[in-house]
Amino acid sequence: MDDVFLYPGESIDDLMCRGFRIIQHKNSYRFAIDAVILANFVNAGARDTVLDLGTGSGVIPILLAAKTRASKIVGVEIVEQVAKRAQRSVTLNNLDERVEIVCGDIKNAPKRFGSESFSVVVTNPPYMKANEGKISPNIEVAFARHEIGTTLDDVVKTAASLLCFGGRFYMVYRTMRLADVIYSLRGRHLEPKIIRFVQPDSLKQPNLFLLIAKKGGRPGLKIFPPLVIYDSGGNYTEEVTRMYFKDSYTPSMGGK
Amino acid sequence: MDDVFLYPGESIDDLMCRGFRIIQHKNSYRFAIDAVILANFVNAGARDTVLDLGTGSGVIPILLAAKTRASKIVGVEIVEQVAKRAQRSVTLNNLDERVEIVCGDIKNAPKRFGSESFSVVVTNPPYMKANEGKISPNIEVAFARHEIGTTLDDVVKTAASLLCFGGRFYMVYRTMRLADVIYSLRGRHLEPKIIRFVQPDSLKQPNLFLLIAKKGGRPGLKIFPPLVIYDSGGNYTEEVTRMYFKDSYTPSMGGK
Repeated sequence: MDDVFLYPGESIDDLMCRGFRIIQHKNSYRFAIDAVILANFVNAGARDTVLDLGTGSGVIPILLAAKTRASKIVGVEIVEQVAKRAQRSVTLNNLDERVEIVCGDIKNAPKRFGSESFSVVVTNPPYMKANEGKISPNIEVAFARHEIGTTLDDVVKTAASLLCFGGRFYMVYRTMRLADVIYSLRGRHLEPKIIRFVQPDSLKQPNLFLLIAKKGGRPGLKIFPPLVIYDSGGNYTEEVTRMYFKDSYTPSMGGK
Repeated sequence: MDDVFLYPGESIDDLMCRGFRIIQHKNSYRFAIDAVILANFVNAGARDTVLDLGTGSGVIPILLAAKTRASKIVGVEIVEQVAKRAQRSVTLNNLDERVEIVCGDIKNAPKRFGSESFSVVVTNPPYMKANEGKISPNIEVAFARHEIGTTLDDVVKTAASLLCFGGRFYMVYRTMRLADVIYSLRGRHLEPKIIRFVQPDSLKQPNLFLLIAKKGGRPGLKIFPPLVIYDSGGNYTEEVTRMYFKDSYTPSMGGK
């Protein structure tokens, strides 16, 4: 057993990838498959510097540290207790040299890091508008789910400012809001290049999509074959199983 | 045999729908599957008035006359000889009371018909930008394929002006330019509501999409299961076969 200090309600979960683990709190927002499929969708090499906007538990930076050679990975998280827990997960995995967790509002990130300071920006932002559904009284859950003080367009604007020319923006989001996303990206000179829809199973309509946009990219969009999460027996499909259980799964069609 | 006057190079083709036929010219742009799948995607009832922007041979108004109860269907075509041929096809099918072909630039349509004068606008616009690929020396083909004098955004702007509040805009277009379409629609208050991608076969990436947008609609997009054109044997799939050979095929998931 490790000598890890845990607060009441916290547990350590295995990320099933190079032995990496993550600290989560039973009453907080726990990472979901969205984060896993996004991390697997990202291509990043040794020269890339990666920023995760709204990093939550830090699961995406940690998975990217496991699955890519990116030299520097930064996660920004507004809720202080969430950011501190993410930082402890980074330390738990001995990733302090590559991964940094910063507590703050993403809107201040361009000032903090400088504009055009990253080659890759990733985000799994809150899916719900501030006026949509009930906002959780738990501050950790509330900020993970709802656009509180930070809208989708704020996320896109921040990403556009932080990315160098030609840099890539990766996101996972709700299909329902695809038009919002494309409109916002175009308005910030982030050109959508690849979309991959995500279906719960092979018969259901997609409810999520993965997207790559390129800063200053030329118009021209490709739609990749859908990612299907569950097979007809209710188990993860082979592709999703590989994402969860292989150390360095590379999507067959990942592009830049 | 009918007593139909044909110019040299013209032929009459069977639309395989209620006995309707169309006059086409061997050297001109002949209607393709795009027009057929678009016509089958459109829902229109007896109260609807329909406008087809860039009607070409008039195939879409004629198919809509066959497949819907729309009381009035107007097709606008800029190339005079094409518009005249379309008008002769309308007369050939005894559709003069329901279908009207107007020769003119679509940009002048709002002035001609009045703004908010249609409940449905459909379009299968040119897929190529003016600076993309070689423009045909044949004026009929050139205007059908290339954005000559009229861009995608002109088409969307015109549709937005002609549609009544809550009216539906239907289009078929290239997947590559989906971001252009969504950006343009949003800028004109036409909200994308449904997209259905079109794949050449079950393994290939979609190259086309069908889209419904609603004037003044609320944000919220649905992605329908893809339409597959050919089966693994290279024949039309059952769904496409139904579109071609049934008199009143109704798409299983058509929406408003």
